[in-house]
Amino acid sequence: MKPYELIGSAGCGSAIVEMALVLADVPHTLTDIPYLKPGPERDRLLALNPLGQVPTLVLPDGEVMTESAAMILHLHDVAPQAGLAPPPDKPERARFLNLLIRLVGAIYPTFTYGDDPPQWTTAGAPADLLRERVHTRRAELWQELERQAGAPHMLGRRFSALDLYVTVMTHWRPGPAWFDTTCPALSAVAREAAQEPNVARVLRRNFPPPTE
Amino acid sequence: MKPYELIGSAGCGSAIVEMALVLADVPHTLTDIPYLKPGPERDRLLALNPLGQVPTLVLPDGEVMTESAAMILHLHDVAPQAGLAPPPDKPERARFLNLLIRLVGAIYPTFTYGDDPPQWTTAGAPADLLRERVHTRRAELWQELERQAGAPHMLGRRFSALDLYVTVMTHWRPGPAWFDTTCPALSAVAREAAQEPNVARVLRRNFPPPTE
Repeated sequence: MKPYELIGSAGCGSAIVEMALVLADVPHTLTDIPYLKPGPERDRLLALNPLGQVPTLVLPDGEVMTESAAMILHLHDVAPQAGLAPPPDKPERARFLNLLIRLVGAIYPTFTYGDDPPQWTTAGAPADLLRERVHTRRAELWQELERQAGAPHMLGRRFSALDLYVTVMTHWRPGPAWFDTTCPALSAVAREAAQEPNVARVLRRNFPPPTE
Repeated sequence: MKPYELIGSAGCGSAIVEMALVLADVPHTLTDIPYLKPGPERDRLLALNPLGQVPTLVLPDGEVMTESAAMILHLHDVAPQAGLAPPPDKPERARFLNLLIRLVGAIYPTFTYGDDPPQWTTAGAPADLLRERVHTRRAELWQELERQAGAPHMLGRRFSALDLYVTVMTHWRPGPAWFDTTCPALSAVAREAAQEPNVARVLRRNFPPPTE
């Protein structure tokens, strides 16, 4: 069977799917690209995914997926033994689905609209205000997730792909120090997941420790 | 068994979940509220869902769901015979998952950030620019979905909950006339789904025809 191909960029949301691919133990290749830089790599990405975003996942049958939560649910379909999601008959399944969609439907878009605000409105004070308000919204969303966090995993005793999201996303703005202070339960979930050797390895590849 | 309770507001995304509840044939009650209006109904909503958004779904066991795509996947778990999603072993499953997440992770947020732009940035020209750019983004996302639309359903011969999203969302800005002109395949999918008597009934309840 042809391997999966994950097109990503170090430190991006593709790290979550990279962890899931490793845990699902399906054959895959990684194509890291500077996805915003014009050139042949971006041209190929745009041909596969006109939105030009990573992660983009090419399946063994050629189907192209562009949404990380969909990739997670798909990998759970093909490798349920990895435990990326609770099975349909488990009581924590509904909560898993809800938090997964909250992460990608509410928190992710705060990066779309808050990362580069002059892309969306007048540069200067109006863009600064947009950034500030979207960042406030993001903080509220994380604090709501904090209230729902279990221990040692998001779902309590059961590991799931939610832990992979939290592990990667706590490396993003506003950064690990903010999470340690404001969302200690999420920080604890992230640290627990990073104990898993495969998760740790992908984390190091995507967020290399600073060198001299 | 206690019925599901769907807290919604006529014409909102709750209409999609209302259709799914009817098609899944699970006992449920509808609580329509003016969800933004201060008062006891909003207080109860905020207690269940601190984000104060509809749809909010209270499950028979008391669990609260707040994300429509998660509700759809949950209802597929409890009533697979309704065909809301393709089963895990079907080739169209990956595309279903990807388009479902695209709808709620990319298109839905254009309403969050584009509907009331003075909430996000300086009122006046900067807010107008934000609205215009977010609306442009929404149009691009719909046109990308148009390229992926099958016939007569989003997935081709197989009905799925994607058709419910398209049926409801083509009633939203920029409106049915825009979809007819710019996204005729999506308009056709919407019309086809609205042939189903249960879908038609929920559609009429949420978007009543104008009266004298």
